[in-house]
Amino acid sequence: MISALKGNIIAAPKLGELDITEKGYLVFNDGGILGVFQNLPEKYAGAEVTDFGDKLILQSFCDMHLHAPQFAMLGMGMDLPLLDWLNAYTFRTEAQFADLDYAREVYMQLAQQLVKNGTTRICMFSSVHTDATLLLMEILEQSGICGFVGKVNMDRNCPDYLAETLEQSKRETLRWLDGCARFNHIKPILTPRFTPTCSDELMAWLGQLAAERGLYVQSHMSENLAEIDWVCQLHPDCKQYWETYQKYGLFGNNTVMAHCVFSDERERAAMREHGVLVAHCADSNVNLSSGIAPVKQMLNENVRVVLGSDIAGGAQLPMLNVITMTIRASKMRRIQTGWQDNFLTVAEAYYLATTAAAQVFGAGEGFAVGDPLHAVVIDDASFAKTRPLSVRERFERGIYLADHSNICAVYSEGIRIK
Amino acid sequence: MISALKGNIIAAPKLGELDITEKGYLVFNDGGILGVFQNLPEKYAGAEVTDFGDKLILQSFCDMHLHAPQFAMLGMGMDLPLLDWLNAYTFRTEAQFADLDYAREVYMQLAQQLVKNGTTRICMFSSVHTDATLLLMEILEQSGICGFVGKVNMDRNCPDYLAETLEQSKRETLRWLDGCARFNHIKPILTPRFTPTCSDELMAWLGQLAAERGLYVQSHMSENLAEIDWVCQLHPDCKQYWETYQKYGLFGNNTVMAHCVFSDERERAAMREHGVLVAHCADSNVNLSSGIAPVKQMLNENVRVVLGSDIAGGAQLPMLNVITMTIRASKMRRIQTGWQDNFLTVAEAYYLATTAAAQVFGAGEGFAVGDPLHAVVIDDASFAKTRPLSVRERFERGIYLADHSNICAVYSEGIRIK
Repeated sequence: MISALKGNIIAAPKLGELDITEKGYLVFNDGGILGVFQNLPEKYAGAEVTDFGDKLILQSFCDMHLHAPQFAMLGMGMDLPLLDWLNAYTFRTEAQFADLDYAREVYMQLAQQLVKNGTTRICMFSSVHTDATLLLMEILEQSGICGFVGKVNMDRNCPDYLAETLEQSKRETLRWLDGCARFNHIKPILTPRFTPTCSDELMAWLGQLAAERGLYVQSHMSENLAEIDWVCQLHPDCKQYWETYQKYGLFGNNTVMAHCVFSDERERAAMREHGVLVAHCADSNVNLSSGIAPVKQMLNENVRVVLGSDIAGGAQLPMLNVITMTIRASKMRRIQTGWQDNFLTVAEAYYLATTAAAQVFGAGEGFAVGDPLHAVVIDDASFAKTRPLSVRERFERGIYLADHSNICAVYSEGIRIK
Repeated sequence: MISALKGNIIAAPKLGELDITEKGYLVFNDGGILGVFQNLPEKYAGAEVTDFGDKLILQSFCDMHLHAPQFAMLGMGMDLPLLDWLNAYTFRTEAQFADLDYAREVYMQLAQQLVKNGTTRICMFSSVHTDATLLLMEILEQSGICGFVGKVNMDRNCPDYLAETLEQSKRETLRWLDGCARFNHIKPILTPRFTPTCSDELMAWLGQLAAERGLYVQSHMSENLAEIDWVCQLHPDCKQYWETYQKYGLFGNNTVMAHCVFSDERERAAMREHGVLVAHCADSNVNLSSGIAPVKQMLNENVRVVLGSDIAGGAQLPMLNVITMTIRASKMRRIQTGWQDNFLTVAEAYYLATTAAAQVFGAGEGFAVGDPLHAVVIDDASFAKTRPLSVRERFERGIYLADHSNICAVYSEGIRIK
């Protein structure tokens, strides 16, 4: 069965480039995208066309760093310093996910909100709880969302009510991985919370497991200066944060590292050489007064960068907000560096939230032939009337102004899920 | 007729203070607010109670700097540098308001969006056009919005198609002021665009007019460094920007100055001494890479500060977004100053968007007895289920997460307008 979406199609094949096809056709079938065409080709004349008229058809969004249980504390405790915030909110909130009924209620809402806002691919932290993690994966899969979910590992430097022993952590990780076999679109990703909460033994075991089973890895890195000091004290043999992951085999081209706010030239070079992916979380870094990551420099140096909402350090789940917050943060960094660093354009930030991350899941550039269809449709008819606008202008305005109420359709893996 | 709203009432009487009355009564009549009570007093037993259940009743919002015609270009041109942005978007957009039909269409939408988002008091720039300005005032008044609107004056350093001659500017200003007599809740405010676009003669004339008629004045000040240099070149007799207004009598306790990003200790002292109000526009200052105003220092030094969306340099009309953007900008400034400046708390930013600005219109602190009722009701039932939350926590979450769809009622001057 061949289908087509008709509308103004806007893809970001490369950083800073937009492919715009006005009133064109995005043709796809079960096998994936067949192409983007100005006119419907003869051979697809029988396609079932969904006509979105003058609406905007964009690539859907990838949220490459977020904490699922923290959805329950979104937008709270933002006046607290990091450690108080962790103790008053984060750990207490995560502990509740031992209760599967509670987990179901929160994770159903999270999945709905992701879909509603056009996020179809994710890279997500769960909590330490194996069963709640499997439930989360189940709910995401059923919602049509794709990506990675990780059961958190932590066996030190955290409250007793959340800490695992080394043995528990290993045993539960294996039990969790066994449970993941049944999912098609949601895959496991190993998730040492961050260096301070994982013993050397646990890190070594996880590194070995990643290698043996070819698993992806996610963690946090260089988020704030106190944390960096702490890590260096814990690993006096390591000169920089990244080396604490690298020495255990947790720093390769299957690794997603959140934040990297304070990654200097040497750490950035290490990320480039090892193919590590940076999940830049602008809103969280601002809310927690961490700092602003040198994203533009990373991109200039060919470090791979994607975006994350990082809820609930970040207070905005919609990736449209994350995109504009990323642009705003880059402008603040521009101010901070005396206009030395340039800012991210709308086209650049859109690329980071779409193609740059979709490539982690094997996708190509923009709406590439053969890729499963991941798309959102934005209806901007309710925005202010003005002089006639180009599709490029409407795209920019859509990115800045649209919310869930303007997202009238969402496609994931070729299936309409909103 | 005595009325009461029942719900969780949250007012900000002073900077950083919250007055919370859980499941209380906000009693009012045509003459204004009669009080906030935990239990409905005997003498008001006959009041018509609107029961908002467990919802949150907040003070409604004041947007103290925005450009009405720029609503038509909201969220566009954000990648352009300031001068290109002005030429490609701002001036072209403003020129269209010579057409009254067009003006009506845009201003109706603007008024609807303000109400929908709980903004009931404004301090607004129109364009140079007298008739469109009167139409804007009419539409705002009919929508139930209160505040100041100014016909822009500019007789130099702007495109020919927008520039007035000195004589035109005077004549049209007087004609506009005559037309304003019919409005009850919308008042005129003199609006020299900013020093570079107003001849010395025009500034002098406006200053005299303000004094003669006791009118308020609004303008822009110290937004970016190139602008400041330009102003100093235009007025070599003035040491600082503020003096170019002060020498013409346009810098008193009836003056609202937008931005003040680069106001140093001396300029801030001048604002304090003259009672000038700063309209801080965080989103605009970030979007245009201007800088971040030293708001916390201003407040510590007893300079009066209020908030503005500054659309369309700002890309967010909802004051809830402006409040959180203000907090975020203050955290960025904290980062920038090596944690020397503190950030604004949620309670502080809420105060700046409510009581601090309402006082310009003669209101008291919080929901003060005798003030006309200005309130919004936030329904947070759709937010994620979590552990039981305090009203204070729900207030914070509401500020961060609510959008127009969560604002279920808006009151302005005692009348429900949404």
